[in-house]
Amino acid sequence: MSWLLTEDHLTDLARGAAVLGTGGGGDPYVGRLLVRQAIREFGPVTVLDPSEVDDDALVVPTAQMGAPTVVFEKLPRGTEPVAALRALEDRLGRAAAATMPIECGGINSMIPLLVGARTGLPVVDADGMGRAFPELQMETFGVYGVPGSPMAVAGERGETAVIDAGADNRRMEWLARGVTIRLGGVAHIAEYPMSGADVRRTAIPRTLTLALTVGRAIREAREGNLDPVAHLAEVLTDTLYGHLRVLFRGKVSDVERRTEAGFARGRAAAVSFDGEHKLELVFQNENLVALVDGEVRCVVPDLVCLLDSERAEPITTEGLRYGQRVTAIGISTPDLMRTPEALAVFGPGAFGLPYPFQPVETLTGDAKGQE
Amino acid sequence: MSWLLTEDHLTDLARGAAVLGTGGGGDPYVGRLLVRQAIREFGPVTVLDPSEVDDDALVVPTAQMGAPTVVFEKLPRGTEPVAALRALEDRLGRAAAATMPIECGGINSMIPLLVGARTGLPVVDADGMGRAFPELQMETFGVYGVPGSPMAVAGERGETAVIDAGADNRRMEWLARGVTIRLGGVAHIAEYPMSGADVRRTAIPRTLTLALTVGRAIREAREGNLDPVAHLAEVLTDTLYGHLRVLFRGKVSDVERRTEAGFARGRAAAVSFDGEHKLELVFQNENLVALVDGEVRCVVPDLVCLLDSERAEPITTEGLRYGQRVTAIGISTPDLMRTPEALAVFGPGAFGLPYPFQPVETLTGDAKGQE
Repeated sequence: MSWLLTEDHLTDLARGAAVLGTGGGGDPYVGRLLVRQAIREFGPVTVLDPSEVDDDALVVPTAQMGAPTVVFEKLPRGTEPVAALRALEDRLGRAAAATMPIECGGINSMIPLLVGARTGLPVVDADGMGRAFPELQMETFGVYGVPGSPMAVAGERGETAVIDAGADNRRMEWLARGVTIRLGGVAHIAEYPMSGADVRRTAIPRTLTLALTVGRAIREAREGNLDPVAHLAEVLTDTLYGHLRVLFRGKVSDVERRTEAGFARGRAAAVSFDGEHKLELVFQNENLVALVDGEVRCVVPDLVCLLDSERAEPITTEGLRYGQRVTAIGISTPDLMRTPEALAVFGPGAFGLPYPFQPVETLTGDAKGQE
Repeated sequence: MSWLLTEDHLTDLARGAAVLGTGGGGDPYVGRLLVRQAIREFGPVTVLDPSEVDDDALVVPTAQMGAPTVVFEKLPRGTEPVAALRALEDRLGRAAAATMPIECGGINSMIPLLVGARTGLPVVDADGMGRAFPELQMETFGVYGVPGSPMAVAGERGETAVIDAGADNRRMEWLARGVTIRLGGVAHIAEYPMSGADVRRTAIPRTLTLALTVGRAIREAREGNLDPVAHLAEVLTDTLYGHLRVLFRGKVSDVERRTEAGFARGRAAAVSFDGEHKLELVFQNENLVALVDGEVRCVVPDLVCLLDSERAEPITTEGLRYGQRVTAIGISTPDLMRTPEALAVFGPGAFGLPYPFQPVETLTGDAKGQE
């Protein structure tokens, strides 16, 4: 059931990962270029289904960490995530049998592929966020008992820091963020080292495949002159992300964005074409909530995605511009991400939002602001 | 030649270390209480002369890191420097044979004694600054080729970070400072792991003994009704710190102090009792330069120390107050600290000061502002 990921997969994967990145996660375009180069140099990457990983195999997830606004300007060399992996292997006194994404949205769908190409390690088709989130404690791995520590952070000059905050994944995030800021706002990490059995117990399965599926659906719709959003909704029906709802269509009327404490924070607004309705988004790297005319229509951990209205190209928070014609969609997340334990770590309250979590499929009636 | 350091040594040692701390290094009073408690609980500490350490023995210096203004308010538990040592031993895969101070001024004369008492390890009578300095690359160890990395930082909740910046000790300082800020402004560290041969080649020898000598001289002068400054000058003649000069006597007229980027920075001024002369001090944790009537009279790495004029009690930058009657003294440093390589790392230019280094014994004629 393992398969080879080649250069031909990368365009679909990057587009799908940008949708699942819900505006954040770093632009996968940069990651795509890095992985393409690595595959050309070292060959294709073996992707393992979670069911294929040995119970006691050591799986070490790898990722990029930092504010997307910085990632966009400060390109990695490509060796940093491997340096993080090696530093963590040294700490553990054991070699990794595979790597894995920590998040399937944005550039972090790509970083483990870069590691896979450069090291020859297989990449497990699963992740710890089922989307993108801005902080390292916001992972299903941690929600279900895998400690993030010890973790390794690597910088572009070969510097490493191995952080051990015991079972306190928030403290680990706090310290790693401090190191990342000192490294210029972006760094590469290896964290949540775990067994194959823990992967099956705590990870969101087959999310690399999901990102490919999402990206492919948008491409196929364009090629076949189908409505890409409708086609995407149809394709998702058979996945763990079964409900897609159109939340709003309109034009971006306001964007407020700042980089603070190592995050891109801000809000954006759009008005419907008839001027009658208003969409408001709040983001911390990722879109956190969509309000239409003041009512919550989709909130974390469910996915709030902005697509450009013509070609359904996903728009990242750093790509948001006044006047863009956008379609906001909401996508439901797997049950594993909606348990009380999970919501305590990455539900609305974890971001300081005053709304309770409600599944997107129960919040959306008729989509307002439709053309 | 090894000897046992007991509770009875601590008062002299703390006072001497405060003099050598040149206003910074953290108030040794807090360190003295911690060491006293540890000696009462675990017994006295073996102090080794540098000549007694085996060539290939692993010596791991331990210290506290942070702004003295924070240290003063945030007391350590006492277990943190041992946690840093253990984390670095784990990284090195080898147990330390001894610990050692990184600086002989301020609280860091005490932290290795705390480690020695708690672990049973001997403490080498030497250090890497020959005084106190605010940054971790400012050590003779590094000046003469011992890398600071890998190093370990430990926090009060048991968190650790092991940093490896290769041969770049400035980068190590930058990253460790970032972690320290995230840990609340103070942390404990183990760094510059080295062989006994490297200790003999790069450390300033017998500076624990020096601190004891300085503290004892002040006490003896008080007990014998001698002039403490004159007695101290006499006692220092036979050491590597052979020249003591009185730079100024007067009253503190201005203090400007701020905690920024993890440091206590500022300046202070004093006027002579006849109102004719002015002393200006600039500090970054430690006093960096003393100007009398606008002329440099003593500059780093030579020691600029403020003593209260009555009892010769050393005054730390955070203890500086308007109206204090003070005596400013300058003390020469060993040749190993005055080489071009050493001055490049911790001479005036390394602190952004526009003065060339000149030995204190060549700068001082008659002391102005004398009573």
